[in-house]
Amino acid sequence: MNRKEQQEMSTTVSRVRAAYARIEAVDRPEIWIDLRPQPDVESEARAIDERLAAGEQLPLAGRLFAAKGNIDVHGLPTTAGCPAYAYEPEADAPAVARLRAAGAIALGTTNLDQFATGLVGTRSPYGAVRNAHDPARISGGSSAGSAVAVALGIVDLALGTDTAGSGRVPAAFNGIVGLKPTRGLVPTAGVVPACASIDCVTVFARTLPEAEQALSFLTSPPDRGLPPLPQRRPGPWRIAVPPRDQLGELDAGWAEAYEAAVSRFRTAGCEIRTLDLTPFTEAAAMLYEGAFVAERYTAVGAFVDKAMADGVAGLDPTVTGIITRARAVPAHQLYDDQERLTTLRTRALTELADADALLLPTTPGHPTLSEVAADPLGANARLGRFTNSTNLFDLAAVAVPAGEVNALPFGVMLIGPAFTDDRLARIAQELNPPVQLAVMGAHLTGQPLNPQLLALGAHLDHTTTTAPLYRLHALPTTPPKPGLVHVGEGGAEIETEIWRLPAEGLGRLLAALPRPMTLGSVELADGTRVPGFLCEPAALSDAEDITRYGAWRTYLNR
Amino acid sequence: MNRKEQQEMSTTVSRVRAAYARIEAVDRPEIWIDLRPQPDVESEARAIDERLAAGEQLPLAGRLFAAKGNIDVHGLPTTAGCPAYAYEPEADAPAVARLRAAGAIALGTTNLDQFATGLVGTRSPYGAVRNAHDPARISGGSSAGSAVAVALGIVDLALGTDTAGSGRVPAAFNGIVGLKPTRGLVPTAGVVPACASIDCVTVFARTLPEAEQALSFLTSPPDRGLPPLPQRRPGPWRIAVPPRDQLGELDAGWAEAYEAAVSRFRTAGCEIRTLDLTPFTEAAAMLYEGAFVAERYTAVGAFVDKAMADGVAGLDPTVTGIITRARAVPAHQLYDDQERLTTLRTRALTELADADALLLPTTPGHPTLSEVAADPLGANARLGRFTNSTNLFDLAAVAVPAGEVNALPFGVMLIGPAFTDDRLARIAQELNPPVQLAVMGAHLTGQPLNPQLLALGAHLDHTTTTAPLYRLHALPTTPPKPGLVHVGEGGAEIETEIWRLPAEGLGRLLAALPRPMTLGSVELADGTRVPGFLCEPAALSDAEDITRYGAWRTYLNR
Repeated sequence: MNRKEQQEMSTTVSRVRAAYARIEAVDRPEIWIDLRPQPDVESEARAIDERLAAGEQLPLAGRLFAAKGNIDVHGLPTTAGCPAYAYEPEADAPAVARLRAAGAIALGTTNLDQFATGLVGTRSPYGAVRNAHDPARISGGSSAGSAVAVALGIVDLALGTDTAGSGRVPAAFNGIVGLKPTRGLVPTAGVVPACASIDCVTVFARTLPEAEQALSFLTSPPDRGLPPLPQRRPGPWRIAVPPRDQLGELDAGWAEAYEAAVSRFRTAGCEIRTLDLTPFTEAAAMLYEGAFVAERYTAVGAFVDKAMADGVAGLDPTVTGIITRARAVPAHQLYDDQERLTTLRTRALTELADADALLLPTTPGHPTLSEVAADPLGANARLGRFTNSTNLFDLAAVAVPAGEVNALPFGVMLIGPAFTDDRLARIAQELNPPVQLAVMGAHLTGQPLNPQLLALGAHLDHTTTTAPLYRLHALPTTPPKPGLVHVGEGGAEIETEIWRLPAEGLGRLLAALPRPMTLGSVELADGTRVPGFLCEPAALSDAEDITRYGAWRTYLNR
Repeated sequence: MNRKEQQEMSTTVSRVRAAYARIEAVDRPEIWIDLRPQPDVESEARAIDERLAAGEQLPLAGRLFAAKGNIDVHGLPTTAGCPAYAYEPEADAPAVARLRAAGAIALGTTNLDQFATGLVGTRSPYGAVRNAHDPARISGGSSAGSAVAVALGIVDLALGTDTAGSGRVPAAFNGIVGLKPTRGLVPTAGVVPACASIDCVTVFARTLPEAEQALSFLTSPPDRGLPPLPQRRPGPWRIAVPPRDQLGELDAGWAEAYEAAVSRFRTAGCEIRTLDLTPFTEAAAMLYEGAFVAERYTAVGAFVDKAMADGVAGLDPTVTGIITRARAVPAHQLYDDQERLTTLRTRALTELADADALLLPTTPGHPTLSEVAADPLGANARLGRFTNSTNLFDLAAVAVPAGEVNALPFGVMLIGPAFTDDRLARIAQELNPPVQLAVMGAHLTGQPLNPQLLALGAHLDHTTTTAPLYRLHALPTTPPKPGLVHVGEGGAEIETEIWRLPAEGLGRLLAALPRPMTLGSVELADGTRVPGFLCEPAALSDAEDITRYGAWRTYLNR
């Protein structure tokens, strides 16, 4: 392909080719249950590009997605992670159809804990799904392949489901965003049920805005009969956190990472309040230990009984053990548990009432594949400590990355009442801290371009100097600007103002920056590095070396 | 002051000094009615810094604000723009007290249309307030000085009030953000009333997040007795716009600027719907033409009557004319108008019911000082066409910049039901378009650093080349990276991918960019310029010139 062809090549087709190349490169076959043939997907991509060229509005054009293997994708079998269960769906599930209608392209169906029963991603005859960042660790599940496909950059979006935490745990383990919408917001038609009354379809993406955009196409039109949104008046976000001891045992470094997330919200101006987590953790324990597990037998119990009797292959023993044991749960225990859940839910909502969100680690820790193999039920139960109660209580949740522990992703969850999905996403944005900018010329306080900084939301933090590694030049620009150059030896300290601004503001400054100015990493007197103004090499040829003045303003006042 | 002193100098004190220097530099004395002496403010700044040093949480520390002259600031007279009306308040108005409690520092009180009666900013014995961007044009009012002080970077925040549009019109004319919260959210105690039943305290800032942060400290604690927030379920924002002919006559270029704002929302994925603006414009006309103006006589009529009889100086003839004419409005007309308003409001809320916000130009045009002097009432009435109905209908509004027309700011308003303040601010964020990035090395599709781009929400737009002005070098970095250098003559076209990403993502990429890479403006084959990867001059000395390969990947595959 020559350069001209490349320039004219459809963006959607090239995106598809890059995705299949990436699938090849990452060598993680266990992500997929059924992957569509590349030529089929390319021809769909060409059709999308033609519709775009014809002026059609396709807001998700160019986006690729994967669907968890328990969601109907027309043209592929729905397996729920069990080959013997497979059927050919007659149509896309509404969630799939809505993404496709907006221009997104489905690449295939992804691996999961069989019948969406598990939070680990290992309970599948299609193979244990390895973590995107460390193949010795679990991906988390049950939406295992969907999360890893997003994290590895194969697809832009993926659909998952969440009953006990399946849309959040793998988001946390793979460093991506997982939106667990309020029950009922996204139709569950065309989805193999796990616990039909509390299942939710979820969205994974690498960033919050991408996940939110996708979700906006998945939701059903407003239903006037729904309960009103709890009232929210402006004011600092009020974030509830449990006392440290109620979090229980966490992996090494996780308590500190969680505290750091709490601090970031506090620094962003949020009010931090304490909440009693007890009703949440007590309800979480009921999901598998109590009678609610019987709903899983309702969903697929008859199939599992017959498959086991027939000795069919591809049944996961841990999953079938859970489902067949649920056959014996008596109805009177379900009455008891439902009554107890109602009481716990009232307590939980009362705890949430004077906060805008509950902030929790998404899980208490991140086990390896071998740790899960050694104790399949125990490891899984521990993972659901913070997520299991969300759907039982009919709450909304957003799982977002919040830094790293030992070079592996660490994630937190914001949980709020039903229909606060929007608000939770907004609060999650507060985790993005402002960035710094080193300024030494026309953007200094009182200098001609300073209003640009102010208009981007910048505030002066302090005044300092660079490390003694730089030389300063007066460039022949309008208005006059300094050219800072890293020379190492023979450099001097140059006076610089350090400003703080939103990352968006820094991006907009850069987007409008004219030649020959550039922005790069500037080393300060204290050894730290911050983004700051530099310049292109060619600009220095006509420029006067003014290092001896030590500061741009001193030079101007010479 | 030596460098060491400068480094240690308090940020808040230096911010105060910069503000007073800026007041001097901009030479706009008409902004202020009473400006506090600089030494007093500096000593308050030192106290703030000491409290910060002692560990106190002061989220607005370092922020300076101004208060409109009809709002009580303890220590300064409250004038409402009329020297004879002045009184010494015994305490701060709650709005002022709340900003101060959060660490913000008040610089003084600002000029306004007398008794907040006007949208022009010229009706004041303290002088007509000139526009921040063009001194021949009006600032807009009545919160005139507050808006200009923010726009000129003197203060970070300012308080205004809004009855007919006084918190939005000057925001639009000066290119800043104006939040007009739902009635009752911010207490109006300590504010000289204009029309007491519909007055609102407002906030100006240069950016939406700054305005929202300030507002969060101004609002009263939730009142369980308030009506529930209208329900909002996720989905693309639905934005209502009127048919073009219902906007009436606009200044030259304004219809196009408004259409461009509509297009930006559409491009961001919002649904655009049509709404009948008639009830809004009919109610707008009632504000001054109908009986509601009598409430202004209730507020200050007795004072104005006596002041006129006594022949006191400093009364604005346009304002006193409006107020004294209001004396004769009969109560039965008020009954009629209230009934008519109720009917119009029902129609307006019905129009709004299936949209999340109404998008309008903030005003129909931007007059010069001399145009207003020639027709004080007519010019003012025209300005309120879109803003006058908001408070009569008990709606929330957010006024934000939306580009320029003829090098002057153009502003739009998002209007929604009471208590949708948060939602409106969120929708307004959609006006920020994504930015582009030219990539030619390790961030290319499939190259080692490409996942960084993906994690920032970037999507490949197309592949092209630079203009034939560049040379490419192989830098001795890990991983290997190319060094692109603008040389002009003797340059070549270098293959480059153009990615699209949120401005925040570009800022975060820059914040983490290591030496010797830099980001600057790169000229493309089609003559456009986009931000792209360049490098520091010193990096080139050990680097091989690989321009002949024409592309980084061609070099790698050599």
